[in-house]
Amino acid sequence: MFVPGLIERKRDGGSLTAGEWRGLLAAFHAGQVPEYQISALLMACFFHGLTREELPGLLDGMMGQGGRLDFAGLGRPVVDKHSTGGVGDKVSLILAPLVAACDVAVPMMSGRGLGHTGGTLDKLESIPGFDTQLTLEATLAQVRRIGCAMIGQTPDIAPVDKRLYALRDVTATVECIPLIAASIMSKKLSEGLDGLVLDVKMGSGAFITDPAKSRELAETMITLGTDRGCPTVALLTAMDRPLGRACGNALEVEECINALKGQGPEDLMVVTMAEGVEMLMLAGRKDRAAARKELDAALTDGRAARKFQEIIEAQGGNPAVVDDPAILPTAQVVDVFKAPRSGTVLEVAPRPIGRCIVQMGGGRRTVDDVVDPTVGLVITARPGQKVSRGEPLASIYARDEAGLALAFRTLTEAVRIGDGVASPLPLIAERLTATGAETLA
Amino acid sequence: MFVPGLIERKRDGGSLTAGEWRGLLAAFHAGQVPEYQISALLMACFFHGLTREELPGLLDGMMGQGGRLDFAGLGRPVVDKHSTGGVGDKVSLILAPLVAACDVAVPMMSGRGLGHTGGTLDKLESIPGFDTQLTLEATLAQVRRIGCAMIGQTPDIAPVDKRLYALRDVTATVECIPLIAASIMSKKLSEGLDGLVLDVKMGSGAFITDPAKSRELAETMITLGTDRGCPTVALLTAMDRPLGRACGNALEVEECINALKGQGPEDLMVVTMAEGVEMLMLAGRKDRAAARKELDAALTDGRAARKFQEIIEAQGGNPAVVDDPAILPTAQVVDVFKAPRSGTVLEVAPRPIGRCIVQMGGGRRTVDDVVDPTVGLVITARPGQKVSRGEPLASIYARDEAGLALAFRTLTEAVRIGDGVASPLPLIAERLTATGAETLA
Repeated sequence: MFVPGLIERKRDGGSLTAGEWRGLLAAFHAGQVPEYQISALLMACFFHGLTREELPGLLDGMMGQGGRLDFAGLGRPVVDKHSTGGVGDKVSLILAPLVAACDVAVPMMSGRGLGHTGGTLDKLESIPGFDTQLTLEATLAQVRRIGCAMIGQTPDIAPVDKRLYALRDVTATVECIPLIAASIMSKKLSEGLDGLVLDVKMGSGAFITDPAKSRELAETMITLGTDRGCPTVALLTAMDRPLGRACGNALEVEECINALKGQGPEDLMVVTMAEGVEMLMLAGRKDRAAARKELDAALTDGRAARKFQEIIEAQGGNPAVVDDPAILPTAQVVDVFKAPRSGTVLEVAPRPIGRCIVQMGGGRRTVDDVVDPTVGLVITARPGQKVSRGEPLASIYARDEAGLALAFRTLTEAVRIGDGVASPLPLIAERLTATGAETLA
Repeated sequence: MFVPGLIERKRDGGSLTAGEWRGLLAAFHAGQVPEYQISALLMACFFHGLTREELPGLLDGMMGQGGRLDFAGLGRPVVDKHSTGGVGDKVSLILAPLVAACDVAVPMMSGRGLGHTGGTLDKLESIPGFDTQLTLEATLAQVRRIGCAMIGQTPDIAPVDKRLYALRDVTATVECIPLIAASIMSKKLSEGLDGLVLDVKMGSGAFITDPAKSRELAETMITLGTDRGCPTVALLTAMDRPLGRACGNALEVEECINALKGQGPEDLMVVTMAEGVEMLMLAGRKDRAAARKELDAALTDGRAARKFQEIIEAQGGNPAVVDDPAILPTAQVVDVFKAPRSGTVLEVAPRPIGRCIVQMGGGRRTVDDVVDPTVGLVITARPGQKVSRGEPLASIYARDEAGLALAFRTLTEAVRIGDGVASPLPLIAERLTATGAETLA
């Protein structure tokens, strides 16, 4: 294998065979190909993309000699979901116990906050004692026992993807749809799933702000999943405003606990239930309306909340938090942001809000930063809402006066009030499957 | 300095400031920026090129904290030439002693064979004992004493370029005009020159086969040289056939010795004398015709050949080779290639010929290969020449029967004989200076 020749071919618009991708990444994994050749190749991929024929080889290469979850003989379907990430996107924390309460196994492997978006692991870790670093064996055992585990990527899952991702992160080669798609799927396909639901975010707060590229990402992941025997469905959902009200780790957990008791904000519940129905359908249910009723029942009769309690307890956290969210850590300084003028809320811009929370201490600017679970914003203002001057629009939870001041400045800009008409994106715009797209908006 | 941000900007079509290039490459030199970030940036440069404003910073960065030749107080102008390389291109070996014989100092720093092309250092080293690895001090002293030294790039000349070039070589990022231009000029501008002549090859045997790109390379180097106070002139010359007759290290040295005695093949002498005139003009001569006569005289009266002898002696080689080229190492197996049919020589394709010599042992396929100085071809057939079936067209000098067979196969393909009309490129097509281009063809 002559690596400069492979790089040159990709550079000049050609493609590698699936076998070349597998061989190259295996050699990289074995330390026989240096990072500087891989990073040059990744940059060439940024410019030319990858053909459909290249993707299976890339995917295999990313999964490397990694570990996999094997649920043979479980007697229950195994389904997961993945979100491309956003601000206030806490759906996973509600969905995992909710679907598990409906007797579908959910081995949920999630990530940490990245850029302006939050991460499921950081949110879970705001629950005192909660441990997200389970081994594959412990995860298997827990899923077999209580139907769900909520963990971080273990070191043996998709080890090559892990190295590639770290390299892409420092060489400006993250933003490449086929690389993103294969990276996500290399992890999800290691989970031994019978089905996967993707929540692909669209709008200014999404990682990918171009709707055509969001759709391409969804379609690429659906192809990868379906080709590997994992039926995959994607919903394209709105991230031009935060989802739900709470943004910030402990605040979002509290909102999730309320949601699991049937008291979640409407937009959050619409997205959660839509994804829940898709998960149940992938688990083999025959009727969408019946699946929806099944989810509603699990919320109403307390099974979903109890499942979350079980998960928390199994992973070392304090399960009492479900009955008494006041156990969650609370912020030092709290204040209220009020409407500076009367009018219509035209926009609640998610990206500056996400960045503000990171700067307040609720996310990482470098890998060494320790996340403060208490800080964040609870924003009640929604696009289209009529407000009067002085009306409370958000609560601010800060570590200090500086954080408070930053949040006030950010909200003044991000919550845009005017005399026009708001035109938010439809909450769920499209449903994509291997056989095509269906417009839901 | 946030390196991923710099890479991203270049990736997205922006440019780095000269200061950013300097800072980035200084940090790379100091080991603070890893190669994988540089190679990703170089690949982005491949796709977007560099703006004119970026080049000075890139050039400074490549020169790093490198050494420079300082000819202050020499009392003679200092001029050099550089060729972008070709097959049979031995001009440097004639030109350096010839121009030095005209009392112009020539501190010639050259390279080794690369790809299908030969290298001045490999050719010189076919002279028994010749040492091309002089220190900067020894080079300075030799130029002060006899007006010329012919050496390889010392480790302290343009150290960052050296590392960058090695990285580009293994990451498919060599073929980028601004990077090539700055790399060449980072070395040449370390030589303390009063003027520089560039021989930019065009045609199928050149590294750059697109004429527009050859011109762009010439113009970029002229700009870089001129801006740094080193007047630079470029000739665009033909490399759609080998230059002269001999191709192969010792064979080329023999042809050069003959040329220094006034017996070189016509095409070789036309190019050599044209570049010689440019060098003398850059050295301050006022009249082109007089400069040409000065060169002719140095050939005729033996001063050029004696200067070569002096250089060989100064650098540890056997100077008797100039009087008796039979001292040069000779090949094991010799044979003659004859015209397989009658007709007109339509083409003598340089690239397969260059590759054949490498495979015969006359060049390197890997950095560890030892070059056999004896092997090569002496091709008398020229494009446009009428030949009869059975007429000798080339002599083959091989290491073994396998090399001989390869050469026969190659010549059968590369020397194309037919009934049409040959249309070789003009030997010297254009002369470019900082003030514009002049068509010579």
